[in-house]
Amino acid sequence: QDSFVVAGRRFSSRLLVGTGKYKDFDETRAAIEASGAEIVTVAVRRVNLATPGAPMLVDYLDPRVYTFLPNTAGCYTADEAVRTLRLAREAGGWKLVKLEVLGNIKTLYPNMVETLAAAQTLVAEGFDVMVYCSDDPIMAKRLEEIGCCAIMPLAAPIGSGLGVQNPVGIRLIIEEAKVPVLVDAGVGTASDAAVAMELGCDGVLMNTAIAEAKDPILMARAMKAAVEAGRLAYRAGRMPKKLYADPSSPLAGLI
Amino acid sequence: QDSFVVAGRRFSSRLLVGTGKYKDFDETRAAIEASGAEIVTVAVRRVNLATPGAPMLVDYLDPRVYTFLPNTAGCYTADEAVRTLRLAREAGGWKLVKLEVLGNIKTLYPNMVETLAAAQTLVAEGFDVMVYCSDDPIMAKRLEEIGCCAIMPLAAPIGSGLGVQNPVGIRLIIEEAKVPVLVDAGVGTASDAAVAMELGCDGVLMNTAIAEAKDPILMARAMKAAVEAGRLAYRAGRMPKKLYADPSSPLAGLI
Amino acid sequence: QDSFVVAGRRFSSRLLVGTGKYKDFDETRAAIEASGAEIVTVAVRRVNLATPGAPMLVDYLDPRVYTFLPNTAGCYTADEAVRTLRLAREAGGWKLVKLEVLGNIKTLYPNMVETLAAAQTLVAEGFDVMVYCSDDPIMAKRLEEIGCCAIMPLAAPIGSGLGVQNPVGIRLIIEEAKVPVLVDAGVGTASDAAVAMELGCDGVLMNTAIAEAKDPILMARAMKAAVEAGRLAYRAGRMPKKLYADPSSPLAGLI
Amino acid sequence: QDSFVVAGRRFSSRLLVGTGKYKDFDETRAAIEASGAEIVTVAVRRVNLATPGAPMLVDYLDPRVYTFLPNTAGCYTADEAVRTLRLAREAGGWKLVKLEVLGNIKTLYPNMVETLAAAQTLVAEGFDVMVYCSDDPIMAKRLEEIGCCAIMPLAAPIGSGLGVQNPVGIRLIIEEAKVPVLVDAGVGTASDAAVAMELGCDGVLMNTAIAEAKDPILMARAMKAAVEAGRLAYRAGRMPKKLYADPSSPLAGLI
Repeated sequence: QDSFVVAGRRFSSRLLVGTGKYKDFDETRAAIEASGAEIVTVAVRRVNLATPGAPMLVDYLDPRVYTFLPNTAGCYTADEAVRTLRLAREAGGWKLVKLEVLGNIKTLYPNMVETLAAAQTLVAEGFDVMVYCSDDPIMAKRLEEIGCCAIMPLAAPIGSGLGVQNPVGIRLIIEEAKVPVLVDAGVGTASDAAVAMELGCDGVLMNTAIAEAKDPILMARAMKAAVEAGRLAYRAGRMPKKLYADPSSPLAGLI
Repeated sequence: QDSFVVAGRRFSSRLLVGTGKYKDFDETRAAIEASGAEIVTVAVRRVNLATPGAPMLVDYLDPRVYTFLPNTAGCYTADEAVRTLRLAREAGGWKLVKLEVLGNIKTLYPNMVETLAAAQTLVAEGFDVMVYCSDDPIMAKRLEEIGCCAIMPLAAPIGSGLGVQNPVGIRLIIEEAKVPVLVDAGVGTASDAAVAMELGCDGVLMNTAIAEAKDPILMARAMKAAVEAGRLAYRAGRMPKKLYADPSSPLAGLI
Repeated sequence: QDSFVVAGRRFSSRLLVGTGKYKDFDETRAAIEASGAEIVTVAVRRVNLATPGAPMLVDYLDPRVYTFLPNTAGCYTADEAVRTLRLAREAGGWKLVKLEVLGNIKTLYPNMVETLAAAQTLVAEGFDVMVYCSDDPIMAKRLEEIGCCAIMPLAAPIGSGLGVQNPVGIRLIIEEAKVPVLVDAGVGTASDAAVAMELGCDGVLMNTAIAEAKDPILMARAMKAAVEAGRLAYRAGRMPKKLYADPSSPLAGLI
Repeated sequence: QDSFVVAGRRFSSRLLVGTGKYKDFDETRAAIEASGAEIVTVAVRRVNLATPGAPMLVDYLDPRVYTFLPNTAGCYTADEAVRTLRLAREAGGWKLVKLEVLGNIKTLYPNMVETLAAAQTLVAEGFDVMVYCSDDPIMAKRLEEIGCCAIMPLAAPIGSGLGVQNPVGIRLIIEEAKVPVLVDAGVGTASDAAVAMELGCDGVLMNTAIAEAKDPILMARAMKAAVEAGRLAYRAGRMPKKLYADPSSPLAGLI
C-alpha cells in the first residue's frame, strides 16, 4: 500500500489537519473524522490549562487513534519555540513535533534564521522535528541537513487560501529532499491540494481551508479525496501537455 | 445522495469516459472500471463492422451496466453527424447521444454553426442530445433553447491536456444553464478535473488524460477521486481568498 | 517601419481606443493623444444628434488626424447592426466599420450567429468590416472567409479587465488568419496588453482599461508603451523557458 | 520626473541589465544602448585579467556614462563574496555593489544565511550593498535592517525565463520596504517585466532574457518599453477586475 514514513512511523493518510478555528470540539471531531487524517496538529500555547474542567481536545479526539503533533504556533523566536516544545514533551511525552517560528503577525511567514536555530537545538535534544518553512530550496536542504524529519514549505501565506503560489520552488525542494516534504499552509480548496500532491509532495497539512469552508465536514471529505486524487495522479504519470488537439476517438473504421 | 439527471436518467458518477486510445480492450475495461464511470462514449464511426469475429467493445463492457453514449467523433458537417446518429439509432436503438461536429482536424475545435444545425435536426427527430461545444455562453444557451439535454463545453482542445483554459466562460455557461453542464475535452490531470467541478459543472468527460497516462488504471482512480473532490468542494463552499495571512492557530491560552 | 494594414490603410500604432466612459471630452482627447492611437471607435447609437449645439466628439478629435471607426455597440441582432452601419455610412460616409452584435447585456459576449449574418450582409454591401468575435478559431476563420478585413476576438468580457483568458484560442486564431487579428475587450492593465501582443496579435483595442484607471492619461501612456513592448518582444523572439537556473554570469576567469 | 534613488544616486531608467552571455562586446554594447539602462552589472570574477590586450568591457561601455555595478556571481560563500568585492573596491574604487551568494549551481538560488552574513560584513566595511535574495519577506526586511541599500528578490530562478512566480511574496516585500526593491532574475519576456513593475517594484534587473532572445537588440528595446509601461500602469492605478461585462459604450442616445 502507498504510505509514507516520518520519524519511523508509517502513515497511510497523506492529509494532515489542524484542530483550531472550528465552532466547537464537536465540529472539530466531525471534520477530522471526515478528513481521514491520522496526524492532527495542536497549538501547544493554545491548550487551555487555566480553566479546570473546561472541555479539552483529547476528550473529542482519542490520542490512541490520532497522532497528536504539537506545534509552536504563536512563537516568534527560536527561544520561545524551543521552550514551548520542551514543555510539551514534559507535559505529554511528545517527541514528534512541528516547529514553526513566525516572522510577523501580518503574514505569519516563517522566520528562517530563527527556524534554523530552533531546529538545531531541538534535533540536538532528541526531538523529531517536522518543520514549517519558506519555499526556499536552499533553506529546506539546510533543515534536512540539520536533521529535521520532514520539510513543510508553505504553499501560500497561512490562512490565505491562495493555493500553491510557487510550484517551481516546491518542486526544487522535493527533488533535493531525502525526507518527506509536506505542503503546509495556503491551500484554499480541493484542487489546490491536488496540485500540491501532483508536484510530488508526500502530504499536505491544512486547517483554515476546512474549518472556514461554509460546510467544514463536506470540505474535509473533499480534501481527503483531493489528496488521494493528486497522489494517484502523481504516481500514474500524467499525459504530456500538447499545443494542438488530438482526436481522442480516431477513425478506425467506417460505418 | 448527490446525483444528476440527464434526459430523465439519474447518474451518481460525475465522471464520463471515452473508450478510445487504449492498448487493448482489456485495458479499456480495467481503466473504465477503476474510473467508476456509468456513462461511456463510443465513436460510432470507429466501431469495427468490417471484420466479423474481431473483438468488440461490448464483449468487455456490459451495456446493461454502462450507459453507452454514441458520439459523432470524426464528423465535420451537420449532415455527417445526423446520418451517423440515425445509423446508431437504427443499429443499436440508441436515443441518448453525444453530438460533436468538428471544425478542423488540427484543433478538433467544434464548428458551432454546424453543431447548431445538427442539434436542431436531432432534437426534432426525438434524440436526447448531449452536445460538445465551445466555451461561448451565448452559443451554449442557444443549444439549450434548441432542446439539448446537456451542454458540454471544452476545457481546452481535445487531447491537449491543458486543463480549464477559460474558467470565466465555463462559469458564465453554468450560471445561465437549466440543463446539466459537463466539461468535455482538455483535462490533463486530476487537479484539472477538480477545477472543472469546483466551477460548478455537473460532470467531466475525458479520454486521453486517462488513456495516455503512464499508468491508465491508476489515473482512472485519480480522476474518480478528483471529480468527487471537486464536487464536494463546490458543495462545501470554499473559504474566501485573502491577501494576508491569518493565524490558523490563534493564541487562546498561555502555557 | 513596423506597421499593419487594414482594408488597404496602413497604421503604425497598434493600439486602438474607444471614446466612451471618460469624464468629459477634454479627458477623452487628452487620453487618446497620450495613447498614440490612430484609430478610435465611436458608438454610432451613442452619438448625440438630439441636442443641437451639444458638444460633439469631432470638436475634440480631428477626423482628419484620427481614423474614426463607427461601431455597433448596443446592437443585439444582425438587423440592428446592419441598419446602424447603413445610417453611419449615409451620415458620415464611413465604409470602414467595426461590427459587434452582442449576445446579452450581462456579459456583452458576442452573438456569433447574428455576427456571421451581419458580416455577410455588410461585406456584400461593400463595407470594410472589422469584427468583434469570440475566441473560437473556427468562427474566426469563417468571418475571414466571409470577407471581414480584421478579426477582433475578445481577451475577456468587455469591461472586465481580466486580461487574456484563453491564450490558446487567440493563438489558434492568429495561426490560421490571413487578415489582421486584434484583441478587443478585456484588457485591464499594461501587462495584459503586452501579453496579447506577444501572442502575435496585430493590435489591441481597449476603452475601459484606460478610461476607468485612476489616472486615464498616465494609463494611456502605459498602454502605448505596453503595446510597443509586446510587439517588439514578439518580433525579437523570446528566450525559451527553462526548468532550472542557468548562470547569467558564467565564470570565465578567476580574479 | 519619475526616478528612483539608490545609495544617494538618482536614476531615471528602471531597467538594469547584465553584461554577460552576448555573442561579443559589440552586441553587448548595442543591446545595452537599446535598453536605455543606466546601471550595468559586471561579474567581478569573470573579468579577464589574465590575458593582457584582450578586449575589455570598458572599451565598449563608457564607465562615465554607465554606472558599473560589480557583482559576486559565482560565489557560494559569504567569505568568497566579501573577498571578491574587496578586490573590486581596491581595483576599481567601486563602493556600490551587488551582492549575490548562491546556494548551488543547479538552481543558482541564493543562500540566504550566507547572504545575510556577507551583507553584514560589507555594510560594516562601508559598501553600498544591493542584494540578490529570495522572495522571503522576512529575510528581505532583515537585509534592509542590516543596512542594504536595495533589495533584489528573484522573480524565478536565474536564467529560467519563467516570469514572476510568486507575486504575493514580492508584494509583501514591497509593502514593508523603505529602500528600493528591484526584481532580479527570472524575467523571460516583456510582459514579465511589466508584471513586476505593476506590483510596485522600483526596477528590474535582467540579463538572459535580452541576451538569449533571438534578436537581443529588439528585445532590449522591448524591455525598455515594458518597464516603462509597467511603471506607468502602477502609477496610473489600474481599473478593478470585474466578474461581468460592462458596456464600454453605453447607450446614451438613439440614432
